[in-house]
Amino acid sequence: MKKHNFNAGPSILPQVAIENTAKAVLDLNGIGMSILEISHRSKDFQAVIDEATALFKELLNIPEGYQVLFLGGGASLQFCMVPFNLMSKKAAYLETGVWAKKAIKEAKLFGEVNVVASSADKNFTYIPKGYTVPADADYFHITTNNTIYGTEIRTDLDCNVPLIADMSSDILSRPVNVSKYAMIYGGAQKNLGPAGVTFVIVREDILGKVERAIPTMLDYRTHIKEGSMFNTPPCLPIFTVKETLKWIKSIGGVAAIEKMNIEKANILYNAIDNSKMFVGTAEKDSRSLMNICFVMKEQYKDREDAFMEFAKSRGMVGIKGHRSVGGFRASTYNALPKESVEALVACMHDFEKENA
Amino acid sequence: MKKHNFNAGPSILPQVAIENTAKAVLDLNGIGMSILEISHRSKDFQAVIDEATALFKELLNIPEGYQVLFLGGGASLQFCMVPFNLMSKKAAYLETGVWAKKAIKEAKLFGEVNVVASSADKNFTYIPKGYTVPADADYFHITTNNTIYGTEIRTDLDCNVPLIADMSSDILSRPVNVSKYAMIYGGAQKNLGPAGVTFVIVREDILGKVERAIPTMLDYRTHIKEGSMFNTPPCLPIFTVKETLKWIKSIGGVAAIEKMNIEKANILYNAIDNSKMFVGTAEKDSRSLMNICFVMKEQYKDREDAFMEFAKSRGMVGIKGHRSVGGFRASTYNALPKESVEALVACMHDFEKENA
Repeated sequence: MKKHNFNAGPSILPQVAIENTAKAVLDLNGIGMSILEISHRSKDFQAVIDEATALFKELLNIPEGYQVLFLGGGASLQFCMVPFNLMSKKAAYLETGVWAKKAIKEAKLFGEVNVVASSADKNFTYIPKGYTVPADADYFHITTNNTIYGTEIRTDLDCNVPLIADMSSDILSRPVNVSKYAMIYGGAQKNLGPAGVTFVIVREDILGKVERAIPTMLDYRTHIKEGSMFNTPPCLPIFTVKETLKWIKSIGGVAAIEKMNIEKANILYNAIDNSKMFVGTAEKDSRSLMNICFVMKEQYKDREDAFMEFAKSRGMVGIKGHRSVGGFRASTYNALPKESVEALVACMHDFEKENA
Repeated sequence: MKKHNFNAGPSILPQVAIENTAKAVLDLNGIGMSILEISHRSKDFQAVIDEATALFKELLNIPEGYQVLFLGGGASLQFCMVPFNLMSKKAAYLETGVWAKKAIKEAKLFGEVNVVASSADKNFTYIPKGYTVPADADYFHITTNNTIYGTEIRTDLDCNVPLIADMSSDILSRPVNVSKYAMIYGGAQKNLGPAGVTFVIVREDILGKVERAIPTMLDYRTHIKEGSMFNTPPCLPIFTVKETLKWIKSIGGVAAIEKMNIEKANILYNAIDNSKMFVGTAEKDSRSLMNICFVMKEQYKDREDAFMEFAKSRGMVGIKGHRSVGGFRASTYNALPKESVEALVACMHDFEKENA
């Protein structure tokens, strides 16, 4: 039976990226060796990372003055690298969920953290508005998409201080005005590639302003200077990122992707909003296009396990909601085909017919 | 033409590990999804990391009280994590080459570094002996194998303070008495697997003794508590590690591997020592079984480029010496077959016949 992969991350990747990765594992470009066993200093691997970097810059229209890095350690390591490199005294953070809270926790080791707004009061079901970022903050940090709660900041904010965005779960899902950000970072394992590599887009002029000593591997300047090859990078994950970026370009770039993502999300949100049994958890104006969270209405709560079993029997994978929200979460990342969303909606309708 | 892969790292891996990785990239265990697109919290991936951990413990006979971690960031990130977690005031380091120097540089950010001995005086061509480790050092750090210079510490040292070893390039090449070490770490990309994952074997009782605040991702206790899954780990690299460990077990474990490594190294060192044209660079009692470095004798120096071309035409890959040593380096890691060493020796003989 065909699987419909709604995993929240690591998550579905384009089939062509998977197939080309498998080929490169056996033999990269016919050189008689695997991508796993060539030197990162070889011209063969240099071509891989160069192409990944160039495609990333092209697809997001990254302006001059920004550098693109591919690092190890995950977005969680960035939570401490950001303040290590950028916080002199004070930084502002927007608290929109678990990942924002983790970033805030690390920042507090380095100075004063001003949480300008939080949606903790309503279990992070909305994106706060109408807050003020202190003009003397070294930067303002946001998490654009909150995988667990299904909320998303889908516009590029105007900000009076350097804006730093964790875009782990919505990078490349829409066009972004990169010039509004001082830095964008994230783990690759949703829209960009497999687990094991982290991207950083950083405007060089924000670096070098703090006085503290920074360990070499945690200093962005190290990786800029060495083109992400100060040490051995995660070669295979970077190869798959390159293949994923090629796929995005081949289907029309991020503008085309955004159109597809809106269409997919509309199909599912409409089904939820018109359902007798299901209800969305995020406030409508804060809804994510990437992670669509819904639960059973109060009177049907006892049917949640039954729906999970039913959906599983129809090939749905990874739709269990995070324990802090409950219910269901359908992650509709770039590579998820519309057919999978339609299959889930059919599943919901059929279950309602028998149970509502 | 068959390639003989002497790359220094990333380097040759067992063919069965490569083939099984390619299969898992297409479809893991017949579940209908790629290893690249399943959740790290899934039972399928949990089984992968559990098997990798169990095999690692079994093959190295790791005693109770030690934890095995698989992290991102590379051994270079460990250079700062070690002092972050373990240096209160002072640490001792043995300076045996570039990687040791990099580790020393990071440690200096955290306290007093006592370099107990160095072989810098002779371009790191030997392993220092007869030094004293200060009894009040928080730990003593060594680099067991020096890829660039072809020297290796092949015995497990007795040490009066916690012994910490970077074994990036010789882990699993021989049986190790783990109980003599407080910690062993390294990048996977030589004997253990592909680039993108770092192993740490740590005795738990050495942790929690420093007073400084440690960022969450840099604290070993975080990763112990969460079984290497505090954040999304490098899933595919860990899968290939698991396959590589299975291969080591299948051919008889590290005792069998050591025998093969000694045999391979003897073939090449004998050829070098009996050669009219070539000469080894490392002192004989310090020679590495992993990286065999040699140059042309003075009177033949001008033939080095010609030999490189000749060797390349016979399928040799990755034998160029590091620029700080020059000449040639043949890396003879676990997965390199004896036939490749014999092919290189035949190449040297044939070249000598025409040129010496």
